[in-house]
Amino acid sequence: MAGDGSLRREYLGIDESGVRAMSGVLYGVGLGPGDPELMTLRAHRLIAGAEVLAYPSLAGGASFARSIAAGIIPEGAREIVMDVPMTPERAPAQAAYDKGAAEIADALEQGQDVVCLCEGDPFFYGSFMYLFARLSTRYRVEVVPGVTSVTTCAARAGMPLAARNERLTVLPGPLPEAELRARIDGAESVVIMKVGRHLAKIRGVIEELGLTGRAVYVERASLPEEVVCPLAEAPQVAPYFSMILLTKGADPWL
Amino acid sequence: MAGDGSLRREYLGIDESGVRAMSGVLYGVGLGPGDPELMTLRAHRLIAGAEVLAYPSLAGGASFARSIAAGIIPEGAREIVMDVPMTPERAPAQAAYDKGAAEIADALEQGQDVVCLCEGDPFFYGSFMYLFARLSTRYRVEVVPGVTSVTTCAARAGMPLAARNERLTVLPGPLPEAELRARIDGAESVVIMKVGRHLAKIRGVIEELGLTGRAVYVERASLPEEVVCPLAEAPQVAPYFSMILLTKGADPWL
Repeated sequence: MAGDGSLRREYLGIDESGVRAMSGVLYGVGLGPGDPELMTLRAHRLIAGAEVLAYPSLAGGASFARSIAAGIIPEGAREIVMDVPMTPERAPAQAAYDKGAAEIADALEQGQDVVCLCEGDPFFYGSFMYLFARLSTRYRVEVVPGVTSVTTCAARAGMPLAARNERLTVLPGPLPEAELRARIDGAESVVIMKVGRHLAKIRGVIEELGLTGRAVYVERASLPEEVVCPLAEAPQVAPYFSMILLTKGADPWL
Repeated sequence: MAGDGSLRREYLGIDESGVRAMSGVLYGVGLGPGDPELMTLRAHRLIAGAEVLAYPSLAGGASFARSIAAGIIPEGAREIVMDVPMTPERAPAQAAYDKGAAEIADALEQGQDVVCLCEGDPFFYGSFMYLFARLSTRYRVEVVPGVTSVTTCAARAGMPLAARNERLTVLPGPLPEAELRARIDGAESVVIMKVGRHLAKIRGVIEELGLTGRAVYVERASLPEEVVCPLAEAPQVAPYFSMILLTKGADPWL
């Protein structure tokens, strides 16, 4: 009882018979942080054998998830691209996932499995949950976890995240300044995700708390263009895929 | 500049020349949560090609890390086993890592690479950091991140961990009751690791906070003997490798 949505169906009071026995399986496959070699063996097997793939493409641009898997996508596989607009309102993105979910459901109804490509891990700040919410009560869904950017950044910075009975707090950079300050102040090890255009604000908060010397900046972890440096030396402009690691131990590397 | 310990050496003021150019590389390799198919391609490649392996074995028992990799360990590879005693004092375990580090250093000095097997991710509540602390200032160390039990449990429970601007807090089960209560109360999504013999205490705290209906219990995620169920239906006795996921959204699955 797990991973295939059965616990969710049970929670929602949906009978197993509500799941169509002859339909395909939707796989939400985590691809890891970017380096294709950090993909799991299962992700590799599922993608290399896929007949139908699905993935989001942000604002009409290239899909990062697809680029990670590009080397192993079988020739002739059908690709369902969800073109997700980057708007402050959520409705347009939700409409894109509605449309994508309907196309995926069609394939599943025809008995085809669908492999959805997800950067990082599908359930860790991933958009796969929007498809999961739309489809997991009706179809078999299997989520394949992936290596997250969090542990990748720690590995690349040579900076253990948490040991023994330490707590770890993951905060998204877009949080309001006052909340960031309070959360960082009360935490032990902290990971700040999605730094991007919030870098100046976050840097200010960490400086105010006297923690700059304990913070490391990582951008595009595991990719050839990766940057790893002390926060004090971070560039002024950060991409969306950037992160700050902060630890309050005596030595951030111990 | 990253992942090979250079940032750490720079932070410590150690010149690159302090790292022996002719010595081998120590790889700290995350193996993921237990299912060998959740190993990364890089972990697979490094282990399958290893001449020297190292791993901890707790209290003289079998090594979980080794069991994950068992199917691909090359015949004739040398295995450095660190027999780590499970005592409340830290000194005996530290002595075991001292001894292991010395054996690993010998191999590195001879120009051999050493692949250290780590369950989950090496820097996420992993013992690899003890070797890293002992060896990374003198030798090249590469940390290969792995899939953590956290996202694996979420995948198996069909329960997204964090979306958009949500915060995620990771707490070890051995924390004192009052601290657990305060941390869970102030958090959004919560993962409680290392539940084991702390299950009754944690269950009590979650019940008191009125959150039992939002909590899922997962034990040995991704292994054949995996258990996934609502916390209310969790067994009375939990193994060390068990976890509770808790989310305060309107629907824990959304």
